[in-house]
Amino acid sequence: MAYLLVVDSSMRGDASVSRRLTGLATARWLATHPSGRVVRRDLEAHPVPHLDHVAGAARRTPPDQHTSAQAERWQLAEELIGEVRDADAVVVGFPLYNWGPPSTVKAWVDNLFAPGLSRERGTGKGLLGATRFIVFATRGGGYGPEAPKYGWDHATPWLVHALSALGIVPEVIAVEMTLSVVNLALESFRPMMERDLAVAEAAIAKLW
Amino acid sequence: MAYLLVVDSSMRGDASVSRRLTGLATARWLATHPSGRVVRRDLEAHPVPHLDHVAGAARRTPPDQHTSAQAERWQLAEELIGEVRDADAVVVGFPLYNWGPPSTVKAWVDNLFAPGLSRERGTGKGLLGATRFIVFATRGGGYGPEAPKYGWDHATPWLVHALSALGIVPEVIAVEMTLSVVNLALESFRPMMERDLAVAEAAIAKLW
Repeated sequence: MAYLLVVDSSMRGDASVSRRLTGLATARWLATHPSGRVVRRDLEAHPVPHLDHVAGAARRTPPDQHTSAQAERWQLAEELIGEVRDADAVVVGFPLYNWGPPSTVKAWVDNLFAPGLSRERGTGKGLLGATRFIVFATRGGGYGPEAPKYGWDHATPWLVHALSALGIVPEVIAVEMTLSVVNLALESFRPMMERDLAVAEAAIAKLW
Repeated sequence: MAYLLVVDSSMRGDASVSRRLTGLATARWLATHPSGRVVRRDLEAHPVPHLDHVAGAARRTPPDQHTSAQAERWQLAEELIGEVRDADAVVVGFPLYNWGPPSTVKAWVDNLFAPGLSRERGTGKGLLGATRFIVFATRGGGYGPEAPKYGWDHATPWLVHALSALGIVPEVIAVEMTLSVVNLALESFRPMMERDLAVAEAAIAKLW
């Protein structure tokens, strides 16, 4: 049965713009896939482990020679990779924290790298390209060419490169200036956020 | 008493180039600071928690109104920030994992952001500029202008920007092509790594 994988990472709960967007996308998907189901992975509530020496060894050692600790990490890789590979589509809520990805998302993506599972052994060819992958990139400030912090968004460029090594070409829908709602000093930028939100909502309505 | 803060993050243990470099820098510092001591933070062995809704609330709530969970996260921020602020110098082993920072380092840096502790309330001015900060950036491949993956190092550019918001201007010493030792297909690049290593070792000898 077709399912949508919904990955959230924001720490802002109900105030989160990325969660609002993944929620809208989920509603849209369910409306267009009445018999589909939704699988949720909330990385903020339930982070996956960092890459460490056990996870590294699990990737270098043939599975039939794994220690029990390595087998556990390999099984996690199989689970996380299978969840993406078998999904009809993946939607990811991806806020910008201190100009980089949430550490929880970095850990999740690191876990998605496993030779033989997500990349062909030898060639390194990405094996997850059959899954549609949509990223809702939300940013507290503005990072366009005209902004003082142009070039400070190190999250989306990283994610696009990393996913490409898995065969995935993500569709990125961005909303900037989300802090304009909570930070009085940024209030004048609120129309920019509203404009981005309107564009994002229109894009969501056309996803499926 | 003066101390050196040594932060490691590599999952490769004794085979790690970044750990070798932080080790050399530590030896050099001890040789030139005979009465100094070394404080170690191994983020691979003992990761710090991700930013989550508790840590976020702790940063928005006056400390005297913290819940006990928030107080715990605020205390961790005080500990981590104080460790950097009070150090004579910080050396960080910073490998590149899947073209981004280790998730453990991202989580550590996220924890270093706290209004009133590491950044002036209101202005956002960084308060940690008095500490010398040295980063050993190690990369499995090559990311210079002539490399096919030029622009794929999303770790060091992020770290330099994030630290600058804390008032820190890091000194970055980079070694590339570290995978040339373990990956036969990259063996011909080993002289590039050896050259980088020699430059790094000469730089370490001049740090103090």
